[in-house]
Amino acid sequence: MAVYTQVDDRTLAEFLAQYDVGEAISFKGIAEGVENSNYLLETTKARFILTLYEKRADPEDLPYFLNMMEHLASQGVPSPLPIRDNAGDALKTLAGRPACLISFLSGVSVNQPSPDQCAALGAMLAQMHTAADGFDEVRENDLSLGGWHKLADTIRERADEVLPGLSAMIDNELAYLDAAWPSDLPRGTIHADLFPDNVLFTGDQITGVIDFYFGCTDYFAYDIAICINAWCFDDAQRFDAARAKRLTELYDIHRRLSGAEVTALPVLCRGAALRFLLTRLYDWLNPVKDAVVKPHDPMDYVRRLKFHQQVRDAADYVV
Amino acid sequence: MAVYTQVDDRTLAEFLAQYDVGEAISFKGIAEGVENSNYLLETTKARFILTLYEKRADPEDLPYFLNMMEHLASQGVPSPLPIRDNAGDALKTLAGRPACLISFLSGVSVNQPSPDQCAALGAMLAQMHTAADGFDEVRENDLSLGGWHKLADTIRERADEVLPGLSAMIDNELAYLDAAWPSDLPRGTIHADLFPDNVLFTGDQITGVIDFYFGCTDYFAYDIAICINAWCFDDAQRFDAARAKRLTELYDIHRRLSGAEVTALPVLCRGAALRFLLTRLYDWLNPVKDAVVKPHDPMDYVRRLKFHQQVRDAADYVV
Repeated sequence: MAVYTQVDDRTLAEFLAQYDVGEAISFKGIAEGVENSNYLLETTKARFILTLYEKRADPEDLPYFLNMMEHLASQGVPSPLPIRDNAGDALKTLAGRPACLISFLSGVSVNQPSPDQCAALGAMLAQMHTAADGFDEVRENDLSLGGWHKLADTIRERADEVLPGLSAMIDNELAYLDAAWPSDLPRGTIHADLFPDNVLFTGDQITGVIDFYFGCTDYFAYDIAICINAWCFDDAQRFDAARAKRLTELYDIHRRLSGAEVTALPVLCRGAALRFLLTRLYDWLNPVKDAVVKPHDPMDYVRRLKFHQQVRDAADYVV
Repeated sequence: MAVYTQVDDRTLAEFLAQYDVGEAISFKGIAEGVENSNYLLETTKARFILTLYEKRADPEDLPYFLNMMEHLASQGVPSPLPIRDNAGDALKTLAGRPACLISFLSGVSVNQPSPDQCAALGAMLAQMHTAADGFDEVRENDLSLGGWHKLADTIRERADEVLPGLSAMIDNELAYLDAAWPSDLPRGTIHADLFPDNVLFTGDQITGVIDFYFGCTDYFAYDIAICINAWCFDDAQRFDAARAKRLTELYDIHRRLSGAEVTALPVLCRGAALRFLLTRLYDWLNPVKDAVVKPHDPMDYVRRLKFHQQVRDAADYVV
């Protein structure tokens, strides 16, 4: 949520000269994206986001993310389009960092989505999963069950600093998920981080989906479970069934959910809650010196996990 | 250089409903301004900057700054225009902070200005000083001689941590300035912080002047001296006479410099160098916990001060 790498006017002009995008009219660092530097660029031809990938991004993964965005945009998903330079390259180097120019998407992200906005999300998510069908590249989800165990190992000893008993709660949940995690649901390319700040709206219409840097290959229904966690709890951390049901209802209209996917929703929601609980707990216990982003409170996801644990079946999430 | 106060979509919509500016199409926190939170807002009607004033801004000074911008914009200076709401108010409260919506200005700030860009700056500065003529409000410059003494008192004991002998250099300079500071130059409303990042260009044309939050009443020629310090040294901290001479030449065409003003330039330049040396030294020795902005290196202004100390007369700065 800051600009870590400064790009001056001359460096920018030299960079833009490699593209057919016109010249800079306006150039502002924006407070978006936790891990990278982002600029909002207006040229004589159009508006763009210029992203410089900072240390935490693995350069080997960048082509996958950019190809994924390009594929989705080509299929009509409102995702940013990576812009290719005159040599045909989208992934470039700028100010010593991997960098990419992507198309600008208008819209405003919502803080507390309405049921109608959750419905729009469900429809868009189904379209995105369907559109990803023709995208062949694979990136394993390093933040699935195996990754959660690794994360838990690094924070086990200190988890109880945040909440007494939390360490045992995490271990019990991991044991449950090891046994209950589904092994054969429909899978493909998922977003895996579709929080409200990564979706842009104009009214109830989605005009943009951004930040594909957790994109990977995993169960489609796990992406839904992430959205139920991220979109369907109110400010007081209470589950809002109306939002979840509209989300899954519209998803199902655009991509039919199998019985196995629906049945798996409670366990997938528990897994998604644990995933964000673990990463937030890690960031909370290991604050980055000079960090510009305040870590998210892991307790929000403790509450979500407890909610999903007492859910009896998928009827809480679907119409 | 960050967003300290978050504004969510509903709070924004309620705020905009008090204006005749249309509805939000895009809303992004921008990394601009060291002390306040700034958002770039696009509505169905136009583009704006939304500023929330954080703790370091004195709320009592805000009407002065906004009135100054409004006056300058009305005189054709490319400064942001504070937007008044339906009740006629420009200074509002948003998310618990004083806040103001101002017009958006395009352009890109330059890192190393060319002599032509310095000429454009000189012309614009003269127009700004002339335009400020009809602006009656007064705000004493608390960062002039008296303020420098106060600042020096707080850092005297630790200044030598940055450079051995720096404390004595500062005290000697203050003694010199106490004796040599002019007492009767033409004065009026000045910007007082006109660094390259506060000026927006399209090519060599100035399209915007921003950040009036150090604006005050002081010698016009002191504003020129600040610009000579901020604009006329290269990356290696070497004085570039060509830039300074073009700056003062074009200034003089648009507002004739008196003999006394020209003669005073060396001492004014020494004062301006000391002013930024002192505030940077203060920030360097007193880093703000969790600060998102890296303090500027005070050594840049030690070098500038040393340069101005060896200048014999104003011929170094003027044609």
